[in-house]
Amino acid sequence: MHYGYFNGTIAPTDQLAVGVTDLALLRGYGLFDYFLTYNGRPFQWDWYWERFQNSATRMHLPLPLGKNETYAILMDLIERSVGAGAASDMAFRFVMTGGYSADSISIERPNLLILTEPIHPVPTVQYEQGIKVILDEYVREMAEVKSTDYKRVILMAQAIRSAGASDLLYQKGGEISELSRSNFFIVKGDKLVTPSRYILHGITRRTIMQLAQSDFQVEERPLLLSELYDADEAFTTSSTKKVLPITQIGDLTIGDGYVGPKSKFLLERFNELVKNW
Amino acid sequence: MHYGYFNGTIAPTDQLAVGVTDLALLRGYGLFDYFLTYNGRPFQWDWYWERFQNSATRMHLPLPLGKNETYAILMDLIERSVGAGAASDMAFRFVMTGGYSADSISIERPNLLILTEPIHPVPTVQYEQGIKVILDEYVREMAEVKSTDYKRVILMAQAIRSAGASDLLYQKGGEISELSRSNFFIVKGDKLVTPSRYILHGITRRTIMQLAQSDFQVEERPLLLSELYDADEAFTTSSTKKVLPITQIGDLTIGDGYVGPKSKFLLERFNELVKNW
Repeated sequence: MHYGYFNGTIAPTDQLAVGVTDLALLRGYGLFDYFLTYNGRPFQWDWYWERFQNSATRMHLPLPLGKNETYAILMDLIERSVGAGAASDMAFRFVMTGGYSADSISIERPNLLILTEPIHPVPTVQYEQGIKVILDEYVREMAEVKSTDYKRVILMAQAIRSAGASDLLYQKGGEISELSRSNFFIVKGDKLVTPSRYILHGITRRTIMQLAQSDFQVEERPLLLSELYDADEAFTTSSTKKVLPITQIGDLTIGDGYVGPKSKFLLERFNELVKNW
Repeated sequence: MHYGYFNGTIAPTDQLAVGVTDLALLRGYGLFDYFLTYNGRPFQWDWYWERFQNSATRMHLPLPLGKNETYAILMDLIERSVGAGAASDMAFRFVMTGGYSADSISIERPNLLILTEPIHPVPTVQYEQGIKVILDEYVREMAEVKSTDYKRVILMAQAIRSAGASDLLYQKGGEISELSRSNFFIVKGDKLVTPSRYILHGITRRTIMQLAQSDFQVEERPLLLSELYDADEAFTTSSTKKVLPITQIGDLTIGDGYVGPKSKFLLERFNELVKNW
């Protein structure tokens, strides 16, 4: 069983509920964050907290808790959840909304949810064979803020399935930004290129850029669709996906269509880092 | 006290709550609709139901209720709410979400809320003096679907207040679309012009276009910012606002800055219609 926190109350997640005048529910006004624990410790906590704070500031929502206070809640939730039979590593989902609103438009006081969830690992076969994604002409509104707006990928679920793909790769006017919930990289020789704008700045992305520093020339810049044609490898990063190879983008096969050595190398580096977290 | 319906259960609104794995809460995947009753009867019910159905189809959400079944619920909610002391006329808010999701991304079965709410009438002074709006370079994603995405206007609340304005008027590349929650019209001589695209097709807009038919030449077409300069009058329409005059748009005064006779005439026509609804 998993435990969660809602505005000061801690309870099993399935007993938590949000009133019907909440502005995320009625008006889509919410932000979130999501990260995993390794060895029972939140991974890259400092960076996630900083990002959560930034999202809150950008959406004019005052944080009701400080960093240390929040960390104590995380530890409490881990302890209770593990005590109730959850696996020792889990995911945290923060959700902060505009709160309950008497006129269904004005912010009064934010609602803050901190949920623990089981980790849904990516199937091994996807690491072995790579995934297929399809291109989508789209760019997220306020992409740099982790708002709750993920309408697009849910709306496109059928199109993704029909194409035998796993996800969308967003591009607009020929410039690539990100996948629906993860960042994008290509490998070309010793160069690692990742889009610099219209993206959410992923913490796993940041971790990989740091881990890659000694072996790659890392370029953070606008990335064009045309550059996919001579990429050796491509992969996506997120807390759940880690370093997940992409071998097909629409009709285009990346490199020779097999998972490449550099994606494997970076995944190994990442796995080493988290093993000792 | 007001009553609401949630997935088959009817209860006082403040006793209704939504579980924390709901996709509107976590992912912004929801649609809604909103309308008033007059003389205890839902105004333009056929048109609202048709729009709600269209929004649901566009968001791939199967409606769990038919039209007559839903109407019976509305009547039940009115009776219970009035019995518990609510005013005889009220507002209905439909909210349909992607439902509870085990993996926080896949749709299983939608959640449907039908809430009754007190009507918040526009202050009389705004009809007498008209309102000020400010221009915002923005266009709603999937504007023709009444999704729950109203982040923009909540985000801009401070900017609106600072300008002494009541709302935003969206434009993109010089083409006007709509206000944040209502439609836009200008009057020029005997012409009534309202934007044809990038808008939610309002039911009050449709009602006004019908009521205006015999006295105006009604033009539904792209409307440019430059046309504001020689407009005689401007107004906005919504179920709550009815026909609300706009006398200032940013720094621009519309016409002579006073509420014009044609806006007043259309408001009177609308008030007559609803009086006998």
